Amino acid sequence: MQALLPTLLLPLLVTAPQAGPRDASDATAPAVADVVRPALAAYRPAVERLLTEGFGALGAYPMLVELCTVAPHRLSGSEGNRRAVAWAVAKMEALGLENVRAQEVDVPHWVRGDVEELQVVGADDDAAEPLSILALGGSVGTPEAGLEAEVVEVTSWEQLAELGAAVRGKAVFYNRPFDPTLVGYGAAYGKAVDQRSNGANEAAKLGAAFAIVRSMTASLDDYPHTGAMRSYQEGVPQIPSVAISTLGAERLSALLKSGRGVTARLRLSCETLPDAKGANVIGELRGSELPDEVLVVGGHLDGWDVGQGASDDGTGCVQALEVVRLMKTLELRPRRTIRVVLFANEENGTRGALAYHEGHREEMERHVLAMESDSGGFTPRGFHFKGPDEALDLLNEIGVLLRDAGIGWVRDGYTGVDIAPMMASFVPTMGFVPDSQRYFDVHHSNRDTLAAVSPRELQLGACAMAAMLYVVADMPLELPRSSKR
Amino acid sequence: MQALLPTLLLPLLVTAPQAGPRDASDATAPAVADVVRPALAAYRPAVERLLTEGFGALGAYPMLVELCTVAPHRLSGSEGNRRAVAWAVAKMEALGLENVRAQEVDVPHWVRGDVEELQVVGADDDAAEPLSILALGGSVGTPEAGLEAEVVEVTSWEQLAELGAAVRGKAVFYNRPFDPTLVGYGAAYGKAVDQRSNGANEAAKLGAAFAIVRSMTASLDDYPHTGAMRSYQEGVPQIPSVAISTLGAERLSALLKSGRGVTARLRLSCETLPDAKGANVIGELRGSELPDEVLVVGGHLDGWDVGQGASDDGTGCVQALEVVRLMKTLELRPRRTIRVVLFANEENGTRGALAYHEGHREEMERHVLAMESDSGGFTPRGFHFKGPDEALDLLNEIGVLLRDAGIGWVRDGYTGVDIAPMMASFVPTMGFVPDSQRYFDVHHSNRDTLAAVSPRELQLGACAMAAMLYVVADMPLELPRSSKR
Repeated sequence: MQALLPTLLLPLLVTAPQAGPRDASDATAPAVADVVRPALAAYRPAVERLLTEGFGALGAYPMLVELCTVAPHRLSGSEGNRRAVAWAVAKMEALGLENVRAQEVDVPHWVRGDVEELQVVGADDDAAEPLSILALGGSVGTPEAGLEAEVVEVTSWEQLAELGAAVRGKAVFYNRPFDPTLVGYGAAYGKAVDQRSNGANEAAKLGAAFAIVRSMTASLDDYPHTGAMRSYQEGVPQIPSVAISTLGAERLSALLKSGRGVTARLRLSCETLPDAKGANVIGELRGSELPDEVLVVGGHLDGWDVGQGASDDGTGCVQALEVVRLMKTLELRPRRTIRVVLFANEENGTRGALAYHEGHREEMERHVLAMESDSGGFTPRGFHFKGPDEALDLLNEIGVLLRDAGIGWVRDGYTGVDIAPMMASFVPTMGFVPDSQRYFDVHHSNRDTLAAVSPRELQLGACAMAAMLYVVADMPLELPRSSKR
Repeated sequence: MQALLPTLLLPLLVTAPQAGPRDASDATAPAVADVVRPALAAYRPAVERLLTEGFGALGAYPMLVELCTVAPHRLSGSEGNRRAVAWAVAKMEALGLENVRAQEVDVPHWVRGDVEELQVVGADDDAAEPLSILALGGSVGTPEAGLEAEVVEVTSWEQLAELGAAVRGKAVFYNRPFDPTLVGYGAAYGKAVDQRSNGANEAAKLGAAFAIVRSMTASLDDYPHTGAMRSYQEGVPQIPSVAISTLGAERLSALLKSGRGVTARLRLSCETLPDAKGANVIGELRGSELPDEVLVVGGHLDGWDVGQGASDDGTGCVQALEVVRLMKTLELRPRRTIRVVLFANEENGTRGALAYHEGHREEMERHVLAMESDSGGFTPRGFHFKGPDEALDLLNEIGVLLRDAGIGWVRDGYTGVDIAPMMASFVPTMGFVPDSQRYFDVHHSNRDTLAAVSPRELQLGACAMAAMLYVVADMPLELPRSSKR
């Protein structure tokens, strides 16, 4: 799709000032606002219905209860994942979506197995002490008898490099906590997660026996948080890697401070099996006038094999479904098509995202926007966006209509793993941004259950997403896109 | 205190445009912003420290754990309330506050007693079915044998008036739910709570035997939510009044739809005893230059006799304490005094608020601002304010500095029960406004526990409060006050 803005509008949008982060109130130059706002004012009644009747419907949470009950564990290749796919297809059909289909995708198939034990011994006479762990996704297991190694703690890559050959045969314990002073929980995660991603490979390059990684959370508790490690590198020994709970990490660190040495014994039966079949589940609310122009809304249907995957990413899946359920219920069928895509294999491979992009290449030019919700179902704060500045300005004007849903801004920022491949085809992308403060407390752990989701917060997010998508999908303006990013 | 703004500033503030709700970005005319912002820019470093180091300190939650463990039930007159007062005094002393004192207050003393039963019988042959209830605070009990009456359901006062004498001897069942389409949970509460406040009196005027009130929540579950009923009116019979869980209300309503009549049997042993002693607990961080100018920050220390009173209002109390703890820890002692006031008896009498105002009348002129946190410890959204428009404009300029804490606006709005009496002395008041979506799920029920509070959300609120108070308490400008409101 080409940008076909009214000639009056286009120059104004292009010349809008670009200083600093934008928010819904002061984003655009007054001249732009003067032109765009009247064009969007017609959508106030529809937006208001979505944020009142739509909010009152509370339809997202019951679907989340279903998904988390039918398939709490939905890791790629698992029986739970197959049940989730079947549930999603049936749910889309029950909701009356059109063109419901499962796009088959080959996915990695890693299984945790039954054995998962870490014991530490602090001094010769001490009894072995078990600590709470979860193997990281993709990790190899240990020999059946386990591995035993002296523990070496590091809190930086520089420290690891200095130790060098001294970690040969050792267990490298990565214990760099979340930066507690960062208000953005995602930013704190982003500064710590390299330990989980690269810990095994970097330790193995120095000859280490295995890696123990402090869980990716700021919460001090005994729940380990799993997650994917980066694939083993060619030519580097494949060593096991596990997440230890933050309390476990504190305990292990305290034991090490005694200075008498700590031995860790690890037993894991996890392994990677041959690739399995998975699927992106797709359904549509066809556009009334421009059905070939498509707005994608989605989350990822896979999830880890702990907890219920409620916040990661059950909430995003049911919000995407709720978006179209609300439009149907309120008889708000937009001119362009809304396509729900529940992606496969976000957690350990991104194969679903790649397959969707690859399998719909010829349609990418007519993909107006792709939106993902994969940051939890918490109370709405804003949207992230990747696309041309003119489009960001326009979306901010729509954002003004969404104040009642708690949407304060639309800003440049990371939008979503599953929609990222489409950026290569110049599709503008948006990420729903809920409040972050509780997300990494539960993420990838047994705490990620229905109990940690508020039905009202979840619904308000769905309403905000629905309102934003409805306006973009229906408006006479077209969302500007670029061929440069 | 008189407004002593620089002559340059004052006319600009006074002439600032007053259209619509304000937020932190577009609140003031550019000319005002141009003058005020440079004056406030000096506070950026201190604010940033409060929102980073202060956030990382996570000091509010451990205090909440203490309070909720020492005194989960803190209703006025109870042993728990005495323990809470003792804890608060000791905590203030341990934190190094100055002028720590307990201001004694006579408080109502209502006790729930041991017997609290509601059974309903749907038809002659049905077994009696127990439903979950809590007596409303202030309710009389029943005779020991209980009361038995036919149930009449109403969802409006008009319906009650039409029934008139037909409710004589009956149990009036108030079953008007929260308006589900209202995004603001407080607004929905505000539209429903008249049933709890006035239900007993209005039913009694028509000769009813007792009142059953649907719990004040939109959550559909089996937890009844208590709360104060308005005092019995002179000359009106005193009849018992109880809250029934929302699921219980749905069940009772369904039974009534059978059309065969429903009988309710109520037994309550609650009663009002003679007034008891309570206390406002007060401590200060004395101002470095203008110690006689006072900013109050507080919450209420009393709470209902169910759950742990974590969100109502343990969070407000520990946030107020954390405000001064942070200022002390970060060595940010402002020029004016910060006075923490943990008020007595908010829930069923407001005697603490009245006593604080009455006992400090001669100081009211030097009360620069009073801030309350009594809407839960959820993620920050903004502040409500009552005071002159010029002050609101100035506070919005400070609000701009608090964006990173999630503060989006300072608006005219309800500020707090405990600081309301000070408005009669022209003290500007502020209410901390966290996100509302979970508050009435737990309010006044057994769900109001530590488990429903996020340590990070709680701390972020404390940091936002501390930053706002620090700037107002330290700035060379004085917060404008009016003698007209």
